[in-house]
Amino acid sequence: MTVDRLLPDQDAKDLIELTREIADKELARRVDEHERAETYPEGLFGVLGGAGLLGLPYPEEYGGGGQPYEVYLQVIEELAMRWAAVAVATSVHTLACFPVFTYGTAEQRARWLPGMLAGQLIGGYSLSEPQAGSDAGALTCKAERVADGYRISGNKAWITHGGIADFYALFARSSSGISCFLAPGAADGLTFGRPEEKMGLHAVPTTTAHWDGVVLEPDRLIGDEGQGLQIAFSALDSGRLGIAACATGLAQAALDEAVAYAKERKTFGKRIIDHQGLGFLLADMAAAVDSARATYLDAARRRDAGLPYSRQASVAKLVATDAAMKVTTDAVQVFGGYGYTREFRVERYMREAKIMQIFEGTNQIQRLVISRHLAK
Amino acid sequence: MTVDRLLPDQDAKDLIELTREIADKELARRVDEHERAETYPEGLFGVLGGAGLLGLPYPEEYGGGGQPYEVYLQVIEELAMRWAAVAVATSVHTLACFPVFTYGTAEQRARWLPGMLAGQLIGGYSLSEPQAGSDAGALTCKAERVADGYRISGNKAWITHGGIADFYALFARSSSGISCFLAPGAADGLTFGRPEEKMGLHAVPTTTAHWDGVVLEPDRLIGDEGQGLQIAFSALDSGRLGIAACATGLAQAALDEAVAYAKERKTFGKRIIDHQGLGFLLADMAAAVDSARATYLDAARRRDAGLPYSRQASVAKLVATDAAMKVTTDAVQVFGGYGYTREFRVERYMREAKIMQIFEGTNQIQRLVISRHLAK
Amino acid sequence: MTVDRLLPDQDAKDLIELTREIADKELARRVDEHERAETYPEGLFGVLGGAGLLGLPYPEEYGGGGQPYEVYLQVIEELAMRWAAVAVATSVHTLACFPVFTYGTAEQRARWLPGMLAGQLIGGYSLSEPQAGSDAGALTCKAERVADGYRISGNKAWITHGGIADFYALFARSSSGISCFLAPGAADGLTFGRPEEKMGLHAVPTTTAHWDGVVLEPDRLIGDEGQGLQIAFSALDSGRLGIAACATGLAQAALDEAVAYAKERKTFGKRIIDHQGLGFLLADMAAAVDSARATYLDAARRRDAGLPYSRQASVAKLVATDAAMKVTTDAVQVFGGYGYTREFRVERYMREAKIMQIFEGTNQIQRLVISRHLAK
Amino acid sequence: MTVDRLLPDQDAKDLIELTREIADKELARRVDEHERAETYPEGLFGVLGGAGLLGLPYPEEYGGGGQPYEVYLQVIEELAMRWAAVAVATSVHTLACFPVFTYGTAEQRARWLPGMLAGQLIGGYSLSEPQAGSDAGALTCKAERVADGYRISGNKAWITHGGIADFYALFARSSSGISCFLAPGAADGLTFGRPEEKMGLHAVPTTTAHWDGVVLEPDRLIGDEGQGLQIAFSALDSGRLGIAACATGLAQAALDEAVAYAKERKTFGKRIIDHQGLGFLLADMAAAVDSARATYLDAARRRDAGLPYSRQASVAKLVATDAAMKVTTDAVQVFGGYGYTREFRVERYMREAKIMQIFEGTNQIQRLVISRHLAK
Repeated sequence: MTVDRLLPDQDAKDLIELTREIADKELARRVDEHERAETYPEGLFGVLGGAGLLGLPYPEEYGGGGQPYEVYLQVIEELAMRWAAVAVATSVHTLACFPVFTYGTAEQRARWLPGMLAGQLIGGYSLSEPQAGSDAGALTCKAERVADGYRISGNKAWITHGGIADFYALFARSSSGISCFLAPGAADGLTFGRPEEKMGLHAVPTTTAHWDGVVLEPDRLIGDEGQGLQIAFSALDSGRLGIAACATGLAQAALDEAVAYAKERKTFGKRIIDHQGLGFLLADMAAAVDSARATYLDAARRRDAGLPYSRQASVAKLVATDAAMKVTTDAVQVFGGYGYTREFRVERYMREAKIMQIFEGTNQIQRLVISRHLAK
Repeated sequence: MTVDRLLPDQDAKDLIELTREIADKELARRVDEHERAETYPEGLFGVLGGAGLLGLPYPEEYGGGGQPYEVYLQVIEELAMRWAAVAVATSVHTLACFPVFTYGTAEQRARWLPGMLAGQLIGGYSLSEPQAGSDAGALTCKAERVADGYRISGNKAWITHGGIADFYALFARSSSGISCFLAPGAADGLTFGRPEEKMGLHAVPTTTAHWDGVVLEPDRLIGDEGQGLQIAFSALDSGRLGIAACATGLAQAALDEAVAYAKERKTFGKRIIDHQGLGFLLADMAAAVDSARATYLDAARRRDAGLPYSRQASVAKLVATDAAMKVTTDAVQVFGGYGYTREFRVERYMREAKIMQIFEGTNQIQRLVISRHLAK
Repeated sequence: MTVDRLLPDQDAKDLIELTREIADKELARRVDEHERAETYPEGLFGVLGGAGLLGLPYPEEYGGGGQPYEVYLQVIEELAMRWAAVAVATSVHTLACFPVFTYGTAEQRARWLPGMLAGQLIGGYSLSEPQAGSDAGALTCKAERVADGYRISGNKAWITHGGIADFYALFARSSSGISCFLAPGAADGLTFGRPEEKMGLHAVPTTTAHWDGVVLEPDRLIGDEGQGLQIAFSALDSGRLGIAACATGLAQAALDEAVAYAKERKTFGKRIIDHQGLGFLLADMAAAVDSARATYLDAARRRDAGLPYSRQASVAKLVATDAAMKVTTDAVQVFGGYGYTREFRVERYMREAKIMQIFEGTNQIQRLVISRHLAK
Repeated sequence: MTVDRLLPDQDAKDLIELTREIADKELARRVDEHERAETYPEGLFGVLGGAGLLGLPYPEEYGGGGQPYEVYLQVIEELAMRWAAVAVATSVHTLACFPVFTYGTAEQRARWLPGMLAGQLIGGYSLSEPQAGSDAGALTCKAERVADGYRISGNKAWITHGGIADFYALFARSSSGISCFLAPGAADGLTFGRPEEKMGLHAVPTTTAHWDGVVLEPDRLIGDEGQGLQIAFSALDSGRLGIAACATGLAQAALDEAVAYAKERKTFGKRIIDHQGLGFLLADMAAAVDSARATYLDAARRRDAGLPYSRQASVAKLVATDAAMKVTTDAVQVFGGYGYTREFRVERYMREAKIMQIFEGTNQIQRLVISRHLAK
């Protein structure tokens, strides 16, 4: 099914149309094979970059798409409807561009953004460590000031596109606190662990990284020394909207498959969608998808309008990812025993949904963020 | 707390500001007394009408406010934050104006709309019957063609503002099916039952009506004979958005009270909002309120943009009213034993929330509407 | 409907049968009038005491019923099916007997228990204070050692049967910590506040108490000085099972009313119970009631077998009261608009359910208890 | 953690102890390897049979264990705590013995039961067909009366232990309706499909079967011709209790892993179990596990006492499997990113839980069963 989207103008409609075409051709056709074989889709991000989909919410002067978040996120959602791992990696890439765009100097922007936004340089985001997921204050990866820049030593974890990305938004502890770096994807002393054996999102690797005294040039520092957590958290506000859109797209895909099956499968002499018990289940799934979308769009429109949106981003991440978990689990239910097999995509969707509740701040962290806003 | 609203322009901001002033002055100050004594707030709807709040989503040429639903519904929400019964009655009045505006002839519009939209004529909506709530096909109230018009005979039920309203959008069965009438609030042969003893919404009566052969002039027929159900259902799509806004406002009020209390009350040496168990509960409540609002606004923006919104209106009604039930119930929980007493408004909010899941189509009916859209 | 109970022996079956007869005759016939008029059912507890229902889980040597908790709680549930306020007061009375039975001396038991267990002396439980509900460590009501006993000064709150009970299990702070007293229901210097205006449970008052230097004889101290919290908490483990049984009975009553209505009311040409959407809702309600009952019975059987049951009592209270809130709210839904009026009992049931989640330890406190057991 | 079980006598305690020893030694040590490699644990069921665990609820005269369901199900639960697939297969084997035990002639019992209950003959249950899961009336697999017995032709699906079992309780359509057969595991004309590629439960295959005119001897018919559905449904009442126990064990295992991790992992300077937000999540998980167990035990005790338990079995299946889905999903959440990897067992538990909501009657079918009991 095609989602009937509310879009601000014809340009946005054209962009969604373009996205659907690319996604149908490049994603929908390759997703099953790569997710099953757990292989990386070589060349795919080049195609997305070539189509202008890897820099959408950044200004055109740096090669970005100049799109409001309201539109950018619906593009992410369309990608996620076909291939969650690719949508997530696209969102993470966009997130990885955030520090240099928002806190970088004019020189840093000019040097790096064009390649990043064109998708020639794919980005990863490296904040977590094995012992510090949501607790950013516990980071131990070090950045020592040395004669020729910063020497990075320590271990990072949970890096989407780890070992493949061309650069990383890296957060490490320097003498004045956490600092943010635009680190290269390959360097002497930088090694990556084996891909994590995940429950889902198999086609894009997630790895650890080991920084063994890698020296970064001074101009790899983004913002001021010690400004890292501020950068990380403001980046995450945007990143969470991306995850909310991914989760919504995944849930929509699961709903679509479930509805299609329920219109075809018959029991007790009629289509299962016409049994009210199942029809109501599907209605609840649809309500969850619609309100997930409305919730992230509302936060996005606030961001586009220059209003505060940090609480709303956390709400959107919480609501949309919980919806995705529920909707995908119920989509398997609609298929009965068939849904429990790899013959149908809903089996994969359910496995993919779970990570959405965890990364870029577990949903417990989102509740903490929201409750702190309330407690002010 | 003031809700930080995303509004389309300065006019809308001014209108919300005006609404808040009136609501603080006229509603917030009177609500406790009237809800407790179960007395009607005489004169209040005149004030709202005078301020232009009773015809907001209709064109200025008939004396309406010319507001998009996106704005109108936020006005309803602001009213509901102070007084749910008044907000509901306002939404019902607006619903009662829908048939003559949408299906009426130029003459009918010219004759009635100005008074209705100015709030000089308060409207009720009379579709339900004692034996036919959501099942509109089972209506038995009769409209017989007679020499001088239509003779109405039968019983109607669940009429907000019953016995007080100046006119009713009345649905009755004529020879060619259900027909819609703009019926007067007083007529020979028209009597109203005693107000229902409801769990909440005490200040505005809900009654039955008994039509004992009341004759309506021919030009009281709105639309064609037999077009009634089409009119009723299209009116309900709009009306459900009004209820969604009422439910959201009620939930927001409950959240606000709960947050304020949780910032003040201390146990085990700290504010209860700072106990994570309660903080997370409040966060879930806030997420429910935010996504309820986003969901009805999304449907409203679709309506304003001329897109189909029937499914979305049902989703909004379902999501927002379930949210209100949950949030108000949890708000009582935040107050502990105090919440169970009339000393605090949350006790009333919880009682008021329940009807939201029931009227203008129970949430089971909403699921039926949604599942039928899916099954197409 | 009659619940088909699993009972250990014929005596238990006879006791349940007796309970049903009394409850049908004395409770079911009077409940509506007293709950509506908010009047105390004079003489009713005398009848219950005369039938032996006010000392069931205590030994026969003191005039108790010698019943295992497994049976006692099902009696409570049967009472709650007819009148929640009476069942709650019975459970509280039983709780108020706990300290003297469990921690009292032989003399104290001999002196008081026979009258208490025969229901000649109705008991209340007085632990909470206006500023200290679940946080027992914050109690401020004082018990000073004086020449002729203990002088009690301070305020207590949320006392079921306040101002009516013949004695109170009273907890106050003495020099060596919280101590427990068997306090008289009337004394110079003891006054009670006006009954709280509650959302429900109208027939049995809940009040504050003001102790203005009331002197209690030395042998009113139960257990050792400073042993009060230990007594209070072990009493509450038993008390919570009583509340779980009350909640289950209330939920069962709501389910029964809803099923009866759903078998009678027709829409779209068939009984609403035969519409699968509603049938599934009723099935979920039934599942919640059945598992609530199974959960409290499991804890009760552990108690009867001498196994630890503190965690299980908290689980039972949490599960059963959340079930009651959900089931009663949904029961109103089954009735549609009618359920929102006082014409049908489900309106009252929903109002009564809410307090179950709050008293004898809010469900947040239950989660705290459970998580501490897990954390050991 | 060891579950502190309420058991009827010392024999039962010894049996649980024996089960734990075997399960720790034979299941816990092999499960990870086989589930990962998707290989069948050769010899394992022989060990279980040798220990007497494959005929527990049947009389000792046939070599069964003579155990009440209350005990048998707790054995199943202990197995499921270590290896869900093995517990499920054990439950299915026990189910497959049900028809011959309950409806077989003395000769049939004597001929087959001893080997079945000793575990020398492993059984499967073959009711479902590719186009008929829960809708048993739609079965098409044929059983034609022929000179030398019954000729079986058609396709069956979703057979646990398919292709491995020594016999199947087979349901096929004969001239007078569905009939039940005790079919051999190998026969000319009987072939099995490739194992389904399931989301979990990898170590025990689930397959289709193709019966191409296989002739069964006349005494393979169990009960009367046309009595098959009656047999199938009464078997399922018992089987559903087995699944409820499997689900509870799986949920308990997930809870145990989550609690252990939460007591070890630290964030923000303390153990995550001591953060109230997470502590409350764990408490809710524990409450779900406890009430799932209580619910299936209540139904089992009814069965043991000779009371009707069909509705209760459906309630137990519904409640326990929904609990397992929720608890395992939340257990992954407790582990954060780690929970999403195969490094920790909770990843597998979540995948295993989903099928519990589906097989032996989807939870939608359970709701249908329950609502029909209510509608009587």
